[in-house]
Amino acid sequence: MTQDNIKAFSEKREKLNELVLKNAGINTKRLFNVDQQVYRDGALPARTKELLGLVASLVLRCDDCIMYHVIRCHEEGISDNELEETLAVGYTVGGSITVPHLRRVWQAWEELKSNTTTDGD
Amino acid sequence: MTQDNIKAFSEKREKLNELVLKNAGINTKRLFNVDQQVYRDGALPARTKELLGLVASLVLRCDDCIMYHVIRCHEEGISDNELEETLAVGYTVGGSITVPHLRRVWQAWEELKSNTTTDGD
Amino acid sequence: MTQDNIKAFSEKREKLNELVLKNAGINTKRLFNVDQQVYRDGALPARTKELLGLVASLVLRCDDCIMYHVIRCHEEGISDNELEETLAVGYTVGGSITVPHLRRVWQAWEELKSNTTTDGD
Amino acid sequence: MTQDNIKAFSEKREKLNELVLKNAGINTKRLFNVDQQVYRDGALPARTKELLGLVASLVLRCDDCIMYHVIRCHEEGISDNELEETLAVGYTVGGSITVPHLRRVWQAWEELKSNTTTDGD
Amino acid sequence: MTQDNIKAFSEKREKLNELVLKNAGINTKRLFNVDQQVYRDGALPARTKELLGLVASLVLRCDDCIMYHVIRCHEEGISDNELEETLAVGYTVGGSITVPHLRRVWQAWEELKSNTTTDGD
Amino acid sequence: MTQDNIKAFSEKREKLNELVLKNAGINTKRLFNVDQQVYRDGALPARTKELLGLVASLVLRCDDCIMYHVIRCHEEGISDNELEETLAVGYTVGGSITVPHLRRVWQAWEELKSNTTTDGD
Repeated sequence: MTQDNIKAFSEKREKLNELVLKNAGINTKRLFNVDQQVYRDGALPARTKELLGLVASLVLRCDDCIMYHVIRCHEEGISDNELEETLAVGYTVGGSITVPHLRRVWQAWEELKSNTTTDGD
Repeated sequence: MTQDNIKAFSEKREKLNELVLKNAGINTKRLFNVDQQVYRDGALPARTKELLGLVASLVLRCDDCIMYHVIRCHEEGISDNELEETLAVGYTVGGSITVPHLRRVWQAWEELKSNTTTDGD
Repeated sequence: MTQDNIKAFSEKREKLNELVLKNAGINTKRLFNVDQQVYRDGALPARTKELLGLVASLVLRCDDCIMYHVIRCHEEGISDNELEETLAVGYTVGGSITVPHLRRVWQAWEELKSNTTTDGD
Repeated sequence: MTQDNIKAFSEKREKLNELVLKNAGINTKRLFNVDQQVYRDGALPARTKELLGLVASLVLRCDDCIMYHVIRCHEEGISDNELEETLAVGYTVGGSITVPHLRRVWQAWEELKSNTTTDGD
Repeated sequence: MTQDNIKAFSEKREKLNELVLKNAGINTKRLFNVDQQVYRDGALPARTKELLGLVASLVLRCDDCIMYHVIRCHEEGISDNELEETLAVGYTVGGSITVPHLRRVWQAWEELKSNTTTDGD
Repeated sequence: MTQDNIKAFSEKREKLNELVLKNAGINTKRLFNVDQQVYRDGALPARTKELLGLVASLVLRCDDCIMYHVIRCHEEGISDNELEETLAVGYTVGGSITVPHLRRVWQAWEELKSNTTTDGD
């Protein structure tokens, strides 16, 4: 996934979320709302919650969910080592079936980091 | 998924099903047969069974299975609200990990409806 | 599961739900609330929604969730054949891995029916 | 699980299977039939198919299914090392989430072996 | 689960782990070893890793794994609110199918806390 | 998946595995190592272990894992019938939710066989 792909992913995700909400009944709207709130700062900081969301998405093997949390982890300033240790827990718990997702995580992570660096130029 | 994509999806699915059956042993053929029979009218009408197949596919998060049942739901005249309430049960039971699939359901549904309308012209 | 077991199951479930809610934050409370609302009459009747909840629980193989929906299906007057056809969809989609749960569903169903009959005495 | 427990497990399983079949429609009966046929000798011997059934049950984490295939593996004369290597594939693919099931497999296996030995007395 | 049950759970888990290791080949031993190492202090502290292990176990719905991480979370001094927010992420991602496990988490947590308090007497 | 696609799949997989290992900590490296070792000849031959890996990947529904094991099965000289019977066990255990993957297995298998034949020319 190139930077353009990451941007395209986020834009398509946003657009289709709007489509879901346009069609959503009251319960779907409530669930969407909780899905926003639950990752906010509380007893645990948002950055830890993003790691929780990432490992949950990894062991359940949902690429779109993983990608979203990887982007959020990058925004929260998660370090390479923190990311790696989180993924290692997921890999240990979830097994080698998670490996294809690990590949895509690191591909995206390299691009997210490369983007940040070039932004500084 | 555009209308052409929905048609392409159905055609590819059909063609590959033929490939599976060409290579299938007796047990695979029997399972394929049950997979056809189990959604037919009985004590429950076919339309309810398609909703059951849809929600099962949603919580198990299989895009191809979901898409097939969405197309069948459209053929059975499922209303927008019936679809939404079925998806809301799946979302509640299966969690936010189902949301990427909800996005793709509504994208396909809009296109299925748009196709029906223009067919009427 | 005998009648006493079904009653004990429901009572323990209720008691522990209270414990969850006692400890619950705002998001957990919202999710619990949606979990109540989503099965109510709407475009689809409550009885159909219980079948949706049952098949979703069956393919995800959660015994407590299955048992709850079986009890609710009995309350909604689901017939033997309607139950069987719903389970057959779940078995077809979810495979033989669901069979241990089918065993427990029918064991509970016989007892739920036996209880209803003896209530009439 | 003691020998008595293994015997009790098999008897209860058989009794409840009869209950499922008593209530079964035509599709459920067909699926049950395939579930018998698919493990029989063919291009692959029954003993290999039992290992396939075991590893599939292990990664899907269904205790009843695992126990059934462990008993069948014992009947097919699977060696300790063959069992261990099969479980190691499942553990690798499925992750540490499979470990509680590995514990119960070895507990049952020791008892199955102990039973065989004392039968010889 | 009473205090005695928590103690019994830990003892049985330990005893059966020894049984797995007695029968384990080299790969199983390596996986067991990683399963110990991966939760240790690193870029992320052990307490955060226990929360990661807990949420992964919750969305994969493995009671034994959940119980182990709950006990470890208690040892690491996780607060009620930190636990609740972690579970809320898991409930959001994994859906209502996780609720039976939430019930058992809070039951164990109350007992773990009650034990700590009375230890102080 | 055409031959070129199979080659492209293998090359991309290899390249991204290198990326994972470049970023890997000690535990991830150990897990990767086990993932290599566990399929080697032992009490069970490598070809049987590839069938175990395939059926585990099929019921867990991971396309990349399935494709890898299908390629390895072809290298190990698995016959059409052995493949079919392995897939039939997976389909039986895992249900119709595995069918989209069966379609892709047979598509790849035909191409792997066609490649082998033309190589002989």
